[in-house]
Amino acid sequence: MSVLIVGSTALDSIKTPKAENSRLLGGSASHAAVAASFFGPVNLVGVVGDDFPKRYLQLYGRHKINLEGLQIESGKTFHWAGEYELNMNHRRTLLTELGVFEKFTPVLPSSYKTAPFVLLANIAPALQHHVLDQMRRPRFVAADTMDLWLNVALADLLKLIKRLDAFVLNDSEAQQLTKEDNIFVALRKIHQLGPKYVIIKKGSHGSILSGPRGLFICPAYPLRKVVDPTGAGDSFVGGMMGYLASAQGSIDDNIRRAMVCGSVVASFCCEGFGLQRTTRTTRAQIDGRVKELEEMTRF
Amino acid sequence: MSVLIVGSTALDSIKTPKAENSRLLGGSASHAAVAASFFGPVNLVGVVGDDFPKRYLQLYGRHKINLEGLQIESGKTFHWAGEYELNMNHRRTLLTELGVFEKFTPVLPSSYKTAPFVLLANIAPALQHHVLDQMRRPRFVAADTMDLWLNVALADLLKLIKRLDAFVLNDSEAQQLTKEDNIFVALRKIHQLGPKYVIIKKGSHGSILSGPRGLFICPAYPLRKVVDPTGAGDSFVGGMMGYLASAQGSIDDNIRRAMVCGSVVASFCCEGFGLQRTTRTTRAQIDGRVKELEEMTRF
Repeated sequence: MSVLIVGSTALDSIKTPKAENSRLLGGSASHAAVAASFFGPVNLVGVVGDDFPKRYLQLYGRHKINLEGLQIESGKTFHWAGEYELNMNHRRTLLTELGVFEKFTPVLPSSYKTAPFVLLANIAPALQHHVLDQMRRPRFVAADTMDLWLNVALADLLKLIKRLDAFVLNDSEAQQLTKEDNIFVALRKIHQLGPKYVIIKKGSHGSILSGPRGLFICPAYPLRKVVDPTGAGDSFVGGMMGYLASAQGSIDDNIRRAMVCGSVVASFCCEGFGLQRTTRTTRAQIDGRVKELEEMTRF
Repeated sequence: MSVLIVGSTALDSIKTPKAENSRLLGGSASHAAVAASFFGPVNLVGVVGDDFPKRYLQLYGRHKINLEGLQIESGKTFHWAGEYELNMNHRRTLLTELGVFEKFTPVLPSSYKTAPFVLLANIAPALQHHVLDQMRRPRFVAADTMDLWLNVALADLLKLIKRLDAFVLNDSEAQQLTKEDNIFVALRKIHQLGPKYVIIKKGSHGSILSGPRGLFICPAYPLRKVVDPTGAGDSFVGGMMGYLASAQGSIDDNIRRAMVCGSVVASFCCEGFGLQRTTRTTRAQIDGRVKELEEMTRF
């Protein structure tokens, strides 16, 4: 089954202590869509400017991502620039040029409106609402977010959370949202806001799912070298939703393995700048690392 | 089979934002010995002063810990006082009175010298060496350490590491020892120092084993409330060694489950001050949480 993914489509200029790359394909929807594409069909919703490089449209194309919902507006594509510290755990934003993204209103082509799986990747909660308003009874809706929306659009975000099956956020965001240091208490508090499934991402420490079958402790794939972690969280939710949409059976039967698949795609993402490593990945390589993680967690 | 455990035996005065308890039974050997005692016989080596409360000798006794190697000297028992911050991740030492511990030389009763499993719990590396010098061909030797010894006794520690089957340390110590941020690169570097098994503890994020069968990602048991984390690391290695000594089969067959058992005993340790919760634990409760962790990591 197909996944609808809405989020940002951007050009990222990324500096690490070892290298610098400018105007890479980035944005939450780009990372999530490529990640999901390894598992099945993806419908993308986003906006780019008329400066958007043709090679990036071709890249989406090679991943068979449906671009009917990608708006191409006159003006500049959203451009973000950031710099990582040596340990890659801290980054600072050097530049944010919203361009055509500033006035983005996601409009769904009618063929998208019946997609059973919907991923509201990181984007303003008002836009995430707007996408849901256009959908016809999706089977499973997940959303990701970022600290920015907790700071500037909390009311919208809280209303959105009520409409979700799954809410995904990272540990510091969970702490900010619940005023709770303890991740397991935070999970309970977030359930009370609505979602049946709550997933807290912990970077290289993996992630935790709380759902109807209890807790799942999802491992991160061990990496000896992290080149650029930009987009890892988006790759995680994208890979997870792609697997879920492709799998037979119930959400409860599949969500754990879906998270592990997302975790693995995120590991490939970290091994190159932007989408450079992810796009060279194969489904067989993903399945190989999933099997390795199965072996590394068995006791 | 029996485990020999050497380390500190102390009185701990612990302050958290919620409560304060003075002169609790503490020390690396006390926590490790009680943890190991759930799985089989334990021989303790340590020193206390003549002020050591009789009720703590009785506590060791209730856990059937062999005290033939516990020296009782005239003078004061090692007394440590510390205070935790609100999130329990940071603590500061308020007081360290070494007392009889200052001149401690571990002497093994002859019945201890053939113990197949040896745990050199956290104590000066010179004393850990001294214990090993008295042993007759133990089957499996593991050691824990702390940042203090990396700072003041690095040469001794490096010599000790060569003599170990398993070396256990936490993530910040691994970083200090190897000058390496990446935990998986650090594991490789520590193997090069000698041990076949290297275990890096990551507190509430679990632990990682690197050994002949590759990596094992060991989960921490989810806790909604941490009362006092003092001794959790000691409980982890103690529980691990206790299980290893009790289990049939090879080290490779058993070490993963041994780590999970250690992780579970550490979780009980965190739920009370000092050893208050650990000592009320039963083997059935430990097995119950091990089973829960098995369920929480399966996918």
